[in-house]
This record gives sequence, C-alpha cells and structure tokens, in this order.
Amino acid sequence: MRFSIETRLVYRFAAPCEVLLLVEPARTGRQRILSETWRTPRAGRLARFEDPATGQRRAFLDAEGDVEVVYSAEVETDPEPHDFGACPAQRVRDLPADVLEYLRPSRYCPSDRLERLARREFGGLDGGAKVAAILAWVGDHLTYEPGVSDSASTALDTLTDGAGVCRDYAHLMIALCRAADIPARCVSAYAWRLEPPDLHAVVEVWLAGRWWLADPTGLAPLDGLVRIAAGRDAADVAFMNIFGNAELLEQSFRVTRLESLAAVA
Amino acid sequence: MRFSIETRLVYRFAAPCEVLLLVEPARTGRQRILSETWRTPRAGRLARFEDPATGQRRAFLDAEGDVEVVYSAEVETDPEPHDFGACPAQRVRDLPADVLEYLRPSRYCPSDRLERLARREFGGLDGGAKVAAILAWVGDHLTYEPGVSDSASTALDTLTDGAGVCRDYAHLMIALCRAADIPARCVSAYAWRLEPPDLHAVVEVWLAGRWWLADPTGLAPLDGLVRIAAGRDAADVAFMNIFGNAELLEQSFRVTRLESLAAVA
Amino acid sequence: MRFSIETRLVYRFAAPCEVLLLVEPARTGRQRILSETWRTPRAGRLARFEDPATGQRRAFLDAEGDVEVVYSAEVETDPEPHDFGACPAQRVRDLPADVLEYLRPSRYCPSDRLERLARREFGGLDGGAKVAAILAWVGDHLTYEPGVSDSASTALDTLTDGAGVCRDYAHLMIALCRAADIPARCVSAYAWRLEPPDLHAVVEVWLAGRWWLADPTGLAPLDGLVRIAAGRDAADVAFMNIFGNAELLEQSFRVTRLESLAAVA
Amino acid sequence: MRFSIETRLVYRFAAPCEVLLLVEPARTGRQRILSETWRTPRAGRLARFEDPATGQRRAFLDAEGDVEVVYSAEVETDPEPHDFGACPAQRVRDLPADVLEYLRPSRYCPSDRLERLARREFGGLDGGAKVAAILAWVGDHLTYEPGVSDSASTALDTLTDGAGVCRDYAHLMIALCRAADIPARCVSAYAWRLEPPDLHAVVEVWLAGRWWLADPTGLAPLDGLVRIAAGRDAADVAFMNIFGNAELLEQSFRVTRLESLAAVA
Repeated sequence: MRFSIETRLVYRFAAPCEVLLLVEPARTGRQRILSETWRTPRAGRLARFEDPATGQRRAFLDAEGDVEVVYSAEVETDPEPHDFGACPAQRVRDLPADVLEYLRPSRYCPSDRLERLARREFGGLDGGAKVAAILAWVGDHLTYEPGVSDSASTALDTLTDGAGVCRDYAHLMIALCRAADIPARCVSAYAWRLEPPDLHAVVEVWLAGRWWLADPTGLAPLDGLVRIAAGRDAADVAFMNIFGNAELLEQSFRVTRLESLAAVA
Repeated sequence: MRFSIETRLVYRFAAPCEVLLLVEPARTGRQRILSETWRTPRAGRLARFEDPATGQRRAFLDAEGDVEVVYSAEVETDPEPHDFGACPAQRVRDLPADVLEYLRPSRYCPSDRLERLARREFGGLDGGAKVAAILAWVGDHLTYEPGVSDSASTALDTLTDGAGVCRDYAHLMIALCRAADIPARCVSAYAWRLEPPDLHAVVEVWLAGRWWLADPTGLAPLDGLVRIAAGRDAADVAFMNIFGNAELLEQSFRVTRLESLAAVA
Repeated sequence: MRFSIETRLVYRFAAPCEVLLLVEPARTGRQRILSETWRTPRAGRLARFEDPATGQRRAFLDAEGDVEVVYSAEVETDPEPHDFGACPAQRVRDLPADVLEYLRPSRYCPSDRLERLARREFGGLDGGAKVAAILAWVGDHLTYEPGVSDSASTALDTLTDGAGVCRDYAHLMIALCRAADIPARCVSAYAWRLEPPDLHAVVEVWLAGRWWLADPTGLAPLDGLVRIAAGRDAADVAFMNIFGNAELLEQSFRVTRLESLAAVA
Repeated sequence: MRFSIETRLVYRFAAPCEVLLLVEPARTGRQRILSETWRTPRAGRLARFEDPATGQRRAFLDAEGDVEVVYSAEVETDPEPHDFGACPAQRVRDLPADVLEYLRPSRYCPSDRLERLARREFGGLDGGAKVAAILAWVGDHLTYEPGVSDSASTALDTLTDGAGVCRDYAHLMIALCRAADIPARCVSAYAWRLEPPDLHAVVEVWLAGRWWLADPTGLAPLDGLVRIAAGRDAADVAFMNIFGNAELLEQSFRVTRLESLAAVA
C-alpha cells in the first residue's frame, strides 16, 4: 500500500533547547520511503540520523521561540504478518540477545507486578494462544476513553481504571505478555483510518523467531500502519523529546492512502 | 589487577523451569578472562551465550529440584577511568544512537518524575561538574541500610526513605542523571573489598564520548570492580532471572585479589 | 456466646517509648466484659481509657527493655446482624454525621481511584444487593495467601496482586463499597475458629440505619467475633502503635469458646 | 474581624445526583454567623445539617441539569492563636481520644512512609519547636506552583515534585507532623487577601491541649481566615462531594473585610 503522511508541530520555546523528533517512518524490508520533505524555520538546524540496525530515523532540532516544523512523506508498505495464533511455545534460551530486554519490566510496563495476574489468567496457555488470550483480555477489560490517563500512567493504573487510550492499551498488553514470559514491545506508527487522526501506539510480540503486530484497541487496520519506531514502552518511542521546556501551540498528524487515487488514474 | 571470583547458588525448583544467569564477567578491552569453570548438576544443561557487541555473557540453565551451581573464574582487569569531573557539557544530538536509551526513564529509575528536582538542585551545572554534584548529593541524602527497600523499590521510594542498599543508591543517581539530561546506566559487578561480600551495583554515566564509572555508595574501590553487565537498571542486570518459581537455599559471591599472591612468588 | 481471650506480646525496646495497645474488647450493647486482667512488668505504667461514645478501649504503656504484656478476658457476646441483603438503597443526606467519613478514601482504601471499577461492576445495583455483589466479587478475585502484601499495601495493590490476607480483603471491600457510595469501615476482632489463631480484620457497611458485619475472607464465623475497634482502615485499628522503635520477640492471640464447657457443667 | 463571604457554583449534572456542600463557615466559640443566605434553583431541595460537637455545617443538594447555587454570609471572627512555638513536648497518652486519629496516616498524608525523614530532620526537637521546624522546612522545600499536582497527589508526590498548591503544602506538613508524633489536620477556610481569591487549605496541629493554626504557604494572614471544616486531609474537607458526575461551568469564592467599612461609618 502507498500512503501520504504529514506531521505538523507548532511549539513555543521560551529558552533555546534541543528537541528529538521521532516522526520519520522507519526504513525496513517492508517499508520504503518514496519521498520526504522537512520544513523547518531554518533548514540548517535540523540534524537527521538513521540507525542501520533497525532503520529507525530520528531528527534533532535546535529550537527557540515559536517554531513550526512540518514533515511529509510518501511511503510504500508491505503488510506485516499478524496471524500469530498458531505459534508454538518458545524457550527463553532460544531468544536472540537483543530480544531479551523486551522480557523485562520498563517504566510504564512494570510486568514484575503482574506475574500473579498473568499466571492466574493465562497460566494454562502457551505461545500464540497465550498472546491471543492476552489480546482479547485487554480488549475486554478496557474502555477507550481519553482523559482518564496521563503521561505518568502505568499499566497498573490502566488496570485499575479499566480505561485509557492507545498507549495505555499497549502498555497493559505489553506488561501482561512480559509477565507471561513473552517478549513484547511498543511500536509507534501512523495509522490510516484512525479517527480522530493521530499517531498510534500498538504492540509487537516475539514468537516463533519473529515480531508480530497486534493492536489491542482494534481502532485501525494493521495493514494501514506506517511504522516509526519500536521500544520498551512509550518512553522510547515518544514522537518528541524536549530537553528543556515548551508549550504546545498546535499539532496534527495526517495519513492518506494513495492506492485508490492511483487506481482511478 | 587479577582477581579470583566465585559465585555459588543453591536453589530449590518445585517445577522444571528456565533460569537465566548473568554472573560471568564481561569480556571487554579492559577485562580478560584467564580461566573459568562452571559446576552444575548436569553439564549438558547449561547453554552459554556471548554478546559480541558488549562482551556480556549469559548462561541458561534448565533447573529442577534442588540445584547447586558454582561459577568460578580468574580475571585480569585494567582500571576503568572515573575522573569525569572535567568533562564539558554535551549536546543530545551528539550522543550515539545506542546511548540515547539511557536518557529515558526505566522501571526503577522514573527520571521523568525527578526533572523538577534535578533542575532545582543541579540546574546551574553542566557535564562532569553536574554529575559530580549528583554523586555527592546522593551520598549526602542516603544512608546505607539493608532492609528498608525491597525488589519493587524505585528511585522515588529511595528518595522518600533516604536509605537503601547499593542498588537503590545506583537507581537514584541514575534517575537524577537522566532527569538532568546525562545518560546513565546500571552496572553489576564483583567488588573486591566489599563487606559483606556480595555483588555490587554501580553507575556509569556518558560524558565526553565514553562511559565513566561512579559508585554513590563509596563502599568499594572502583579499581577492584569486575564488570558483569550494564543495563537500564537492576531489572536488566539481575544475576538471576527465574522463569518460574524457586526458593533460595544458599548463595555466596566471593572475590579475591591475586596480585599480592603473585607478588610474593 | 461466651469466649475466653488472651493476647500475649513480647517486644524489645532499645529506648524508652510509648505504646498504644488496642486489644481490649469494646464494651457495647452486644458485648459484655465478664472479667479481665492485664499483666505487665510494672502495673503502674499502664494507663487505660474508654471512649464513652463507641465503647472502644485503649491502653498506653511506657515501654523499655524487654517487655512482656498479657491481656486476658472473658467476654459474652450477642450475635450481630449480618443479613443485610434486603436493605434498600439509601440517600447520602440521610447518613448520620459520624458515618459520612466512612464514605471517604483513607490511607489503605483509596476509593477515589476505584470509582470507575465500582460503576462498571456494580453500577446497576443498590443497597444490600450492591454490597452482597461486592462481597462476592472480592471473594472471587482474591486468593488468601500470606507473604504477598506488607504493611504498606493498599487496596490497589491487592487488586493488582489478586491475593492477600484478611486486612487486604477488608481494604479492597471497603474501598469498593465507598467507591460505590456505601459507607464502610474496618473492624478488628478476636475470631473464634480462625486458623491459625490471630486477630482478624473484617468489614462493616452502613445500610438501613445501622452497621452490618461482613467477612470477605469467609475464614471465621461472624458469630464468633469479639469486637475490638472500628476505624477507617487498618491504620486506625492496629492492635499496637509504637511511638519509637521495637523488635518483636513473640506474640500470640487466643480465643476459646466457653459455652460448651458451661453446658457440660 | 468581620467578613462578607460568597461562594458561587455553577455545575452541569447530566443525571440527577446528590451533592454534599461544605461551604458554610463553622459556628464556633471564635466565629459567629451574623447573617447568611442560600440561593438555589429550588430552595426546598437543600437540606442543611450542623454537627453540634464541632459546629461544622454541611448542606445536601439534589442536583440535576444546569445548577447555580450561591451561598453568602457575614461572619465575625476572633483571631485564633498560632504562636505555638513555646509549647512543650507532649505524651501520646495525654491526647484526647478524638485527637488520636490525627496521628494516623490518611489518603493524602501517608505519614507512615515519612517516619525516617521526620526522624532524620526533626528527631532532636520536640513540641512547638519541632512543629516550627517542620513549618519552615516545608516552606523551604516547596515552590507554590499551580498545575504540578492534581486531585490524586499525595504528600509523597509533593515531596518529590518540590511544588504544589495550598492543599499540597498542607498535606506535606500534616504528614511530617504525624510522622513526628504530632497530631495534625487539614482546615478549609475562606482566606481574606488570598490572591487569586479561592478557598484555602491550612494546617492545625495539637499542642499543649489545643489546636493551633499554621499556613505553610504563608499566602494569607491567619487572622483573615474564616474556618469551614477540619478533617484528616483534603478528602474530608472538600467543599463539594458529587455522588455522580458533573461538569464544572463556573465557580468563584469571595471574601471581603467589613471592619474598615464599619470604621468609616
């Protein structure tokens, strides 16, 4: 599929500071950047980096005063597999070294506190069946409702509240997977057909030697995701890290599918 | 320096389970393994891995029943630098990609909650001077006292309690460094002259293009450390991850310096 | 029913300090103290007080060194009603002034955080039916297991853990009742037939103009309780408040039913 | 002193619900209500109660739809003493029964977690000198800054943040006093000269047989307070408890001193 994406950020910086932007789609075997443009107040102040191992791309901005940045791109994606249901159980010793960290608790996914719950609810299951059960359980136990959680909310808060937004759904599913000895991580993405338009947070679990996508909110088609970054939880994949203080003035995220237009031509 | 180390673990496993052991010293440019031995109930059941990027080495054990494992080694180390005081301020954009994650909050180091404190106490400082101030502040504000914290204690708990053990000291220093925009991580190590003998947790901060050791407890000489692993916090460098349940029967960690013996010969 | 009770406490006090003991059964319309004795190192150092409004009785001790105190009594009780199931809904404005505080969150019962859960699970119910549903829900969701919780555990921790002891069961039920606009409080009591013998924590809810007993653990017969004190949560009804430091050496709580003996005579 | 006060509350209630209002000044030996008026949509729906023991007065409203209520009064007050500095140390056993609960942890004042800090900072002091030291310490360690805390913030959060509003200052001071064995409670009040005009939260400590006022924010003169209610923490003295859901449309609190006007006449 082909998508046109656009991120627009307008912030006020009272004092000069560095900003890390994680909004460019990753360059992966399944995702090609056809074209892209950055518009910033002064082009020379943007520094871009690409991580060769993961294809994740980040940009640094020296920001001061009122700053508007716009990133736009056209991206072509091949759908990523997400039918993990039949994956067999796996042994921890067979996990690659760089997957092990996704078994461990993180800031927003304190999986060490959920081991009892995971054992009680999913103790009899294994592999893909266990992940499918966790995915369904999270969907059953949570209500999508903005305003309940905030940037400090953890998977424990979400479990107590029974409500949250995509990031909270992802954190709870990730924490439960890790508590059940399944590596899991958080993926930030552009999401076609997500309403209202926004960046999306979904989950990846490691089974049968690869990562599989899952969206516990069920709010957007998995084939319509354009992946930005993966990390332990929302702390790792925030679209913006401000090393100083700033005030949000305006921001928007837009995804349009281009296939249908092409089909018309 | 040359050290002889020995770890002895005796645990009871009611049901078969996998155990990840992080007790072998890392193989680094400054640390050479002269010899080493594992004693386990059945040798064939131990699987060992080495991470080529970091030199960290881990072992997996299939455990069942009462299990005694003993790891012993002789290691030669070159002292690692820890006189970071004169390091200049650094920009976030100049940090290597694999250092960025050590700026972010983690399970036991919720640095996002300490930004106000970091700004108030250390806001006027930069680079090595800032880290030196944080190191001194942690030493001043904490009392070394076993029994106050437990495995769920975070840097916030330690800040409230004003007391803890090496892991708590490390977590608070790490969280404050990250809150002050200094990458910081947790290092597990054998520690010569630590009393009573135990594994030790210390801190590494990234300044001027490299990692520097710091021990906020001041309980053991930095030159007597034999490094095992580095990670975001204690969750990443636990010497033992049990994927199931177990009961501790006995354990001990021993470090002896060999130099003086050699000198006698 | 008639019961013989005995509390024996042996503690070591490194420095002189005051101790508040809440172990004497309350004197109420349904509970008569037939006889009682205190044994302390020096009798003159015990000061006893009775609250005329509630009949609760407390004792203060000046403690120093190794101290053994023994309180024993014979008590006659009339069973307290606990068949609240048919109680109708009630209006907040009809609650007595001194009942209102039991609608509010307390240290271990942060009911403000459970309002969403209460609404989702019990929103369609009222009065006694709602309390009965909460009682059953707590019993279904928790496993009685010592060692999971500690003295800092709140109802939120217990909800996450799905396990705890009598005090944790009580806190979760109390928090859910308050979140559902039902006044609820914590009662400490001697509990005949509780195994192993210990003080017990149960719940009282206010419905239809009076307090009703409930025991979410179901571990001891309600008619075998000898009430000591009621309060917002375990903080209010602790059997011992030490205003200083002490080390527990030994303690025991014993309840024997006397009726059967009398019947033999 | 004589004050004119006015509270105006405009809320939207999607469904009918009960509302508890704690906005009427208490009637005490030092505070006389000269006149007062309630304006509500339908006067008959307001039920008012006065607690004979404390003089605290509360009102219940059956609310539905958009509701505006206005309470206004003229009140005459005698200044309450607040020069507690010379009060001697006190023994717990000498505290009245109804003061003991103010030694215990509460929802927002988990004093049990601050005992180590209290001992370290104020361990060598007693009585009024200890309270004076706590008052100064809280003022030194906190910055008054709206927006840092929210309705779930506890004294521990405030200690970590080093910032908050009047309620947070009060909670931290109360928690520290209790941790130091000084009974302390939270008082809600109208506050003359508080800018911007709002209800105020201050502290009362029990020393030498009576309660003494203290304001850790120092934002308003103690002699200009018109007391509404006292309780364990903000949960007990909230000016509004909504037993259902509501949306705030507008609210204001006003205090004017009348003395000077009288002096002119």
